[in-house]
Amino acid sequence: MVGPLAVDGDHAAGDYYLPIATTEGALVASVNRGCSAVSAAGGATARITKRGMTRAPVFRVAGAAEGAAVIEWVEDNEDRLAAAAEATTSHGRLQSVTPYLVGDNVFLRFSYHTGDANGMNMVTIATREAAALVEDETPAELVALSGNLCSDKKPAAINAVEGRGHTVTADVTIPRETVERRLDATPEAVETVNTRKNLVGSAKAGNFGFNAQAANVVAGVFLATGQDEAHVVEGSNCITTVEVREDALYASVTLASLQVGTVGGGTDLDTQTEALELLGLAGGGDPPGTNADAFAEIIAAGALAGELSLLSALASRDLSSAHEELGR
Amino acid sequence: MVGPLAVDGDHAAGDYYLPIATTEGALVASVNRGCSAVSAAGGATARITKRGMTRAPVFRVAGAAEGAAVIEWVEDNEDRLAAAAEATTSHGRLQSVTPYLVGDNVFLRFSYHTGDANGMNMVTIATREAAALVEDETPAELVALSGNLCSDKKPAAINAVEGRGHTVTADVTIPRETVERRLDATPEAVETVNTRKNLVGSAKAGNFGFNAQAANVVAGVFLATGQDEAHVVEGSNCITTVEVREDALYASVTLASLQVGTVGGGTDLDTQTEALELLGLAGGGDPPGTNADAFAEIIAAGALAGELSLLSALASRDLSSAHEELGR
Amino acid sequence: MVGPLAVDGDHAAGDYYLPIATTEGALVASVNRGCSAVSAAGGATARITKRGMTRAPVFRVAGAAEGAAVIEWVEDNEDRLAAAAEATTSHGRLQSVTPYLVGDNVFLRFSYHTGDANGMNMVTIATREAAALVEDETPAELVALSGNLCSDKKPAAINAVEGRGHTVTADVTIPRETVERRLDATPEAVETVNTRKNLVGSAKAGNFGFNAQAANVVAGVFLATGQDEAHVVEGSNCITTVEVREDALYASVTLASLQVGTVGGGTDLDTQTEALELLGLAGGGDPPGTNADAFAEIIAAGALAGELSLLSALASRDLSSAHEELGR
Amino acid sequence: MVGPLAVDGDHAAGDYYLPIATTEGALVASVNRGCSAVSAAGGATARITKRGMTRAPVFRVAGAAEGAAVIEWVEDNEDRLAAAAEATTSHGRLQSVTPYLVGDNVFLRFSYHTGDANGMNMVTIATREAAALVEDETPAELVALSGNLCSDKKPAAINAVEGRGHTVTADVTIPRETVERRLDATPEAVETVNTRKNLVGSAKAGNFGFNAQAANVVAGVFLATGQDEAHVVEGSNCITTVEVREDALYASVTLASLQVGTVGGGTDLDTQTEALELLGLAGGGDPPGTNADAFAEIIAAGALAGELSLLSALASRDLSSAHEELGR
Repeated sequence: MVGPLAVDGDHAAGDYYLPIATTEGALVASVNRGCSAVSAAGGATARITKRGMTRAPVFRVAGAAEGAAVIEWVEDNEDRLAAAAEATTSHGRLQSVTPYLVGDNVFLRFSYHTGDANGMNMVTIATREAAALVEDETPAELVALSGNLCSDKKPAAINAVEGRGHTVTADVTIPRETVERRLDATPEAVETVNTRKNLVGSAKAGNFGFNAQAANVVAGVFLATGQDEAHVVEGSNCITTVEVREDALYASVTLASLQVGTVGGGTDLDTQTEALELLGLAGGGDPPGTNADAFAEIIAAGALAGELSLLSALASRDLSSAHEELGR
Repeated sequence: MVGPLAVDGDHAAGDYYLPIATTEGALVASVNRGCSAVSAAGGATARITKRGMTRAPVFRVAGAAEGAAVIEWVEDNEDRLAAAAEATTSHGRLQSVTPYLVGDNVFLRFSYHTGDANGMNMVTIATREAAALVEDETPAELVALSGNLCSDKKPAAINAVEGRGHTVTADVTIPRETVERRLDATPEAVETVNTRKNLVGSAKAGNFGFNAQAANVVAGVFLATGQDEAHVVEGSNCITTVEVREDALYASVTLASLQVGTVGGGTDLDTQTEALELLGLAGGGDPPGTNADAFAEIIAAGALAGELSLLSALASRDLSSAHEELGR
Repeated sequence: MVGPLAVDGDHAAGDYYLPIATTEGALVASVNRGCSAVSAAGGATARITKRGMTRAPVFRVAGAAEGAAVIEWVEDNEDRLAAAAEATTSHGRLQSVTPYLVGDNVFLRFSYHTGDANGMNMVTIATREAAALVEDETPAELVALSGNLCSDKKPAAINAVEGRGHTVTADVTIPRETVERRLDATPEAVETVNTRKNLVGSAKAGNFGFNAQAANVVAGVFLATGQDEAHVVEGSNCITTVEVREDALYASVTLASLQVGTVGGGTDLDTQTEALELLGLAGGGDPPGTNADAFAEIIAAGALAGELSLLSALASRDLSSAHEELGR
Repeated sequence: MVGPLAVDGDHAAGDYYLPIATTEGALVASVNRGCSAVSAAGGATARITKRGMTRAPVFRVAGAAEGAAVIEWVEDNEDRLAAAAEATTSHGRLQSVTPYLVGDNVFLRFSYHTGDANGMNMVTIATREAAALVEDETPAELVALSGNLCSDKKPAAINAVEGRGHTVTADVTIPRETVERRLDATPEAVETVNTRKNLVGSAKAGNFGFNAQAANVVAGVFLATGQDEAHVVEGSNCITTVEVREDALYASVTLASLQVGTVGGGTDLDTQTEALELLGLAGGGDPPGTNADAFAEIIAAGALAGELSLLSALASRDLSSAHEELGR
């Protein structure tokens, strides 16, 4: 557990202890240091700008002409598709269907609000019904219920750009003095590391992840709280920005595709439920979705803490020293 | 645990039970089905074509002219860099240093053979010494010991193209009859799903992962054996190919960047050590590296089993049915 | 000029001679061969599934909270933004505004229907007015009228996934006999080359272009007709698919982001106007946009011809022979 | 033509007038403004850090085991491959062969020094002979002489990361006063635009091009000097960096994959030869390759001028104004 971490979100509000399961001692110490700086600065602000769990079946059509006609039918019948999909679930709500034609393949990317659940199974079942309707009403023939434009557990630009699960930003402005005292680095040095490593370095690497260690925090929290570990893949689609402001350091993380739930799946196991209870977020929220939203905000704030700490450590050159001292 | 899974690698050879930790019951059933088909066909063949754990510091230089000179120095002094790096470790061996100049940034991607260890900490410490030598002998100034061309725990093309950790391929040719009996699908249908979903769908998604669920297998095995869960990110850089051959189905997976170890880190915990012992791979191999190599081969074979099973399930349209029946 | 090329689109219909300006003789011969096969098979079918020229300014906000509020304002005021933008143009029509928050940056991706014009300048001017309204009504401060989520003349996933300019598919089904006679290859061999080169090879290369030579055709036609040559970058975002069907070969190209116009820019020059006149597409269409649409369909059909010819040449191993014989 | 542009490269040295063919008047004015600022600051420095034209055939093998053996043979026989390849050319020299195994596909990326030629045809012919040797000596069967790991005229990460043609960096440090007078902007504003647009915006777009308009300059020069216009695709793989330094602005461009030649192809046409003669670079250099190298350095400096001018224009908000005033 790391913290306390002060978070001011639309749904999360207060000081949290973030459950992290890891065998790397240095990670806990690192995130803790970041939490201390964030909290001393008054806490992280977090906002969700998009959410939607996706599933994208692929259909075979005769060719471009038939494919274009199928797409037109889909666009004209989103309400029927929604009715078919939502008949299978009490919590899922179809938000949009985005069609893509590639030769004789039609991909339909269905995006759902899934309440407090991660929702992968929910949207798979719902989409099966919607896909059946497409097959009934058009010449399209289902090839696979998942056509990889979802894109589940793969490093995909479509998720980095358009989001999957929660798209969430957390940021903080830390007074210079606090940066220097708590993070042992100057704002200028942290900005320099972020620009040259996270922005320019990632650019040269052909990277969708413009961050230092977002995946470490995501993986640790996912494990502690019963999330699907393979969703760490999408969780690494994070852009970190840092800017020196007047006598302060502004830092942010934006996670494009953070997939979390507080009900269902591994969250129902005892230890994992307890971890969510410590956050006050076990089970369904009122209204539905608010627990998952709050959880996403807190994880983003935790990722921000992790970024600040590692960037500062690099700026003061003690990355490998930390590993040596704190063990792993 | 899933299996038995027959593997014929350069290092692995025999029938294995693959430890998988997951809360998703359907995953175990799914991979088991694939193992059954692979083993019935005589087992998977596996080969490692590249290995090397990387760390890429970023240095600041005055500009292009100085940067080019620094790179020239590095290319002329790989032996001195190797000596400096290897002085810190009994197991690590520097294999190559690849320089990249971007404006006034010099990135040096160091690649190491790390024996049976995952080696992230080992290469960080070794690279710190090599970087110090660069600073001593050239005008370059270290900005960060990791400059994101490593690229650690991020979805990066550089890893998908050039590899990180083990680059490993596993494949199998399954008689038509076995495909139909064990996987309940025709070779033609499996090929169709792979082409339209894993190849064309991933292409349209801007994806580095041309597979169905490699990350599920990687995440489950990593958790059971004490690997770093955040390395699931790179583990999803997998291309799956399928081709109908004469009365048979050929299928392969190629994982570009699978990061595993059988010593150090979380592998030293009791339960995780036991899991590796079941594979006969706990601790260091003789010669060093062979246990890690065998482990990589087995995981690749497991990923192959997972691909075959899920592709077949999609081909016979029972993805969501499986989830419903087997629970999660 | 290459052709005749039979095209059956929503807007193009008939036999066309496609103007291509190139210094590479082999290219003209190659595309001609493809045109012959396509036309002998009854022509290519072409469909546009999306169109919209984009411009995406970036604004600075105080942080995540303010950014989320600005996005909310934008979503609530698309009609006012449209009115502001459209006041500057008689042909442009705002179709959508898609917001993205990254830390303290708000990106707004404006997408316009631009009639028969490519429309880059039109949308820049229109977006300037819309951006001014955002500045007037919200705390957001414009940093740059283009924030690279447009993304203009750069190899960007956002264009490959979501499109820019015209998203257009062209396909054809060619009888086996015609493939063998006109393309000197078997359908099976062409499919094999496409799968292993265009799909698997591009996958391994971390490529947004899953094709053989789409950029050659796009560049040649752009030069002959006065399009912006730098838009060849986006023109290369093309996925080619090939499948053996009953006694025939199905082939398709899907260009995600083809930016063309029949009015304005270089199309007004004499030679370029003549080239468009040969296609019957010089100047504005009735209704506006139909000439540009027809032009996009024809280029896609031309790219299809180029793909078929080169894939066949590779399948029969005469790529470099062709270069030697036909000169360059 | 734009200029004069002062360049200090390893091969280029002096004041150049850069030939640019474009129908966009604003582009010439824009680049000219940038040249003026660069030259007033003493000129751009340029360095080539890598060069090599690539061709990557794809071979079919029986599977992973055979593929690994083929790769081993290739690694053991690079000298024989070089001899076979170089027998076809007086100017080409094989620099390296990089193997990649994906399932039952072996890709071999051959990289050549091609003297003063762009070299696409040269390397295609040379690689055909090398591929024939692979077929003679191993069980690998050639599928296609180009397997898209080249990757020719496609937006590919492999080129952005590892380069193709020339990898060249140009940079300049401009006194604050010169920035303000010549570019009408402050260094701080230019840095802000670059960070938020070229770095963060491109990151969010899933972009390989972290620049403002490199493709415009590349396309214009390519057209004027007889380069292959479709190579503008790779020419857009450019990262621009900007940093405020003590009373000055540092700016750089790094083009990863700029493909140019001063002999062969379209450079032999009269007008294009004249354009190269104005640069003093028509025909072969002494030693071979130096003219192409100098040309690459000058184009990079030109791209730098274009970046500085457009970033400054955006910083002072006159992008669309410029378009309106200068016509297009």
